[in-house]
Amino acid sequence: MLKTPVIVLNVKTYEEATGKKALEIAKLMDTLASETGASLAIAVQPTDIQMCVENVSIPVFAEHIDPITPGSHTGWILPEAVKAAGAVGTLINHSEHRLKIADIDVCVTRSKELNLDHIVCTNNVATSKAIAALSPNFLAVEPPELIGGDVSVTTANPEIVSRSVDAVKKIDKHVGVLCGAGVKNGKDVKKAIELGADGVLLASGVVKAKDREKVLRDLISGL
Amino acid sequence: MLKTPVIVLNVKTYEEATGKKALEIAKLMDTLASETGASLAIAVQPTDIQMCVENVSIPVFAEHIDPITPGSHTGWILPEAVKAAGAVGTLINHSEHRLKIADIDVCVTRSKELNLDHIVCTNNVATSKAIAALSPNFLAVEPPELIGGDVSVTTANPEIVSRSVDAVKKIDKHVGVLCGAGVKNGKDVKKAIELGADGVLLASGVVKAKDREKVLRDLISGL
Amino acid sequence: MLKTPVIVLNVKTYEEATGKKALEIAKLMDTLASETGASLAIAVQPTDIQMCVENVSIPVFAEHIDPITPGSHTGWILPEAVKAAGAVGTLINHSEHRLKIADIDVCVTRSKELNLDHIVCTNNVATSKAIAALSPNFLAVEPPELIGGDVSVTTANPEIVSRSVDAVKKIDKHVGVLCGAGVKNGKDVKKAIELGADGVLLASGVVKAKDREKVLRDLISGL
Amino acid sequence: MLKTPVIVLNVKTYEEATGKKALEIAKLMDTLASETGASLAIAVQPTDIQMCVENVSIPVFAEHIDPITPGSHTGWILPEAVKAAGAVGTLINHSEHRLKIADIDVCVTRSKELNLDHIVCTNNVATSKAIAALSPNFLAVEPPELIGGDVSVTTANPEIVSRSVDAVKKIDKHVGVLCGAGVKNGKDVKKAIELGADGVLLASGVVKAKDREKVLRDLISGL
Repeated sequence: MLKTPVIVLNVKTYEEATGKKALEIAKLMDTLASETGASLAIAVQPTDIQMCVENVSIPVFAEHIDPITPGSHTGWILPEAVKAAGAVGTLINHSEHRLKIADIDVCVTRSKELNLDHIVCTNNVATSKAIAALSPNFLAVEPPELIGGDVSVTTANPEIVSRSVDAVKKIDKHVGVLCGAGVKNGKDVKKAIELGADGVLLASGVVKAKDREKVLRDLISGL
Repeated sequence: MLKTPVIVLNVKTYEEATGKKALEIAKLMDTLASETGASLAIAVQPTDIQMCVENVSIPVFAEHIDPITPGSHTGWILPEAVKAAGAVGTLINHSEHRLKIADIDVCVTRSKELNLDHIVCTNNVATSKAIAALSPNFLAVEPPELIGGDVSVTTANPEIVSRSVDAVKKIDKHVGVLCGAGVKNGKDVKKAIELGADGVLLASGVVKAKDREKVLRDLISGL
Repeated sequence: MLKTPVIVLNVKTYEEATGKKALEIAKLMDTLASETGASLAIAVQPTDIQMCVENVSIPVFAEHIDPITPGSHTGWILPEAVKAAGAVGTLINHSEHRLKIADIDVCVTRSKELNLDHIVCTNNVATSKAIAALSPNFLAVEPPELIGGDVSVTTANPEIVSRSVDAVKKIDKHVGVLCGAGVKNGKDVKKAIELGADGVLLASGVVKAKDREKVLRDLISGL
Repeated sequence: MLKTPVIVLNVKTYEEATGKKALEIAKLMDTLASETGASLAIAVQPTDIQMCVENVSIPVFAEHIDPITPGSHTGWILPEAVKAAGAVGTLINHSEHRLKIADIDVCVTRSKELNLDHIVCTNNVATSKAIAALSPNFLAVEPPELIGGDVSVTTANPEIVSRSVDAVKKIDKHVGVLCGAGVKNGKDVKKAIELGADGVLLASGVVKAKDREKVLRDLISGL
């Protein structure tokens, strides 16, 4: 399972993180992780999982799995397939890819069966509590209105983090809690951890940065 | 573009066609294509595209793309990503992964922009006509009730093939027409071509076969 | 709020319960409720809500609401609209109409805002716990594989009821718990209540019955 | 079938058009239709169909139907139900409620079976052609980016109307073509008809107007 505190980077389907460009980012994170000892992980597009896995040591995640078992599901993301490609975990229910509650339950169960680490995304305290009841490894609370924005959730709405942590731990203390949305620097990471989070989930703040190494080093400084 | 008449194999998310097992099938098809000169193509899971592309010469397709451009679309299938992984084409709107009409239009347009060959699946004569109006490279008509079954569409419902071909060519004669559902042997392939089809799309008939080479050789004999 | 123990009938989109036929069933339940004092409620199609409300005294529910506020949502079910038509409550997330977790949260919140009673359907103990965390008025646990079948959940899987009740009450003791799937007679109702449920949700057992009055009287006898 | 040229008002789920407020608008249109002889129709929420039908003579449409037959489809919109409530027609595939191509085909077929008039919405010339191939009574082309805006499609993009008309008639001359998006006054209606359309589909321009009678009279003047 992910070592905490952790910084998880979701590269989405950004042009700057497709194909070999995803690998470039993964390699940079790999170098920094091994240099600093920080716990870093990257979630990439399914087409890029294997290439990243073959070239870096940090945990590579899928961005999504579908609630299916092997069979006739043309074009859907099979949990066994991301595992076979070398992913050690997956995001589930990202705000850009929300699932039905019964399907989240299936995805969590399937991840556990396959020993895939998993981070279920939630959008507020209420849904964090709901997801905690499914006992995933991690959940990541991200207010949708702050995603991709300039203000970190830890500044704009610190209570959503601390209250999610409290509510989640009351339901299942083994569920790790990450937070995300607008996280950009070491100060945001530090604050997240002070608020009780086990780490952060972020995307554009790194992928779109002019100097990714600088941003990553700053983020790591907050761990 | 795919050389016709063509046999396209969709390996779905079958256990027997995930990860290295997908590559095994691709290699077998590659050997037979080069030996016989037949036009064969394979559609694989996104996680397996690159591995197949690096090891075979036959066209490798994605099973699906989502109607998106690069950006914030966590966990969806970016057309650019399957292209970057080396796919030369994609299925669109498979009966197990149906899309909204406006989204099929976007997928066809995006495929053309990226020079990705594309096969849009339809389920009857009416939807074949509708899709023909979008002028895709190919469409593949597959009656859902026959998919995965023991009786070939060319036997159970030959009119759906011939009438789709007629209707499609009347709307846009440049659209290739494949047919599928229950296709299992050379006789079925031969009949499909006699009915005016440019080839067949099939899945379980090969993937689940005990002796895939034998089945593939028989299918090829019908071209 | 619904008086418990309660029998809630969901008439789905059965031909036998569309238009005036829905009203017939509602009237029969109304007569029996007033005669026996039993707490009965009916969920009908949106087109039939007003007609039922105008003609019966038992609570009339919608079968579904969408997670929206007034605005540009052509063809979706506005919570305000079912309220305006006279419904006093609604089902949410029925197994035939599942919603994303963030959307269930919105539907529960919107129901509370509009003072609409609400019953959120779940499919197992895990999802019952998850939904309990959203603190709805009621949830109704229904194993999908038993819905519409001949064996009552209370016979086939009594633990799913008792364990859901326990798990739900641990998270929020104010959440009422119904159960459903295969419930057909008074014995099933009695067992449901013994297992800790506040009532039952059923459909075909009444709608499809040859002698609905007889079935309803039997069900009521179990309260 | 709708008499053309026609003005069809979709009241969406606007607060100003829910419950009795929908009826108010329907009555105003009814008065103006009978006074001027203009062909007017209104599409309302399912909960409001019966009330409108009982009080006005103009055609009342549903805003949506789902691709289903009677049965176990809790909370979905059954074509038979809107028919039983008195609707004479329905919108299908509105840009706010898009459907899969196979499902549009089912909705068109089901509408024909039930003798429900139907208007299938499209978003550009390509999808208009595709839908024409399904031979619906009408289609309504509405560029999504102009919906609810201040500039009429007939001004912003007249070619989309004339080209859709041409393309549709080439595929099936019996399909009526409406246009919509930003239509607000008689000049827009007149232009639509000059461009070959059989009428217009509009929403906010009337529902949100301060003086609806004035706006409707102006629109009618363009017929």
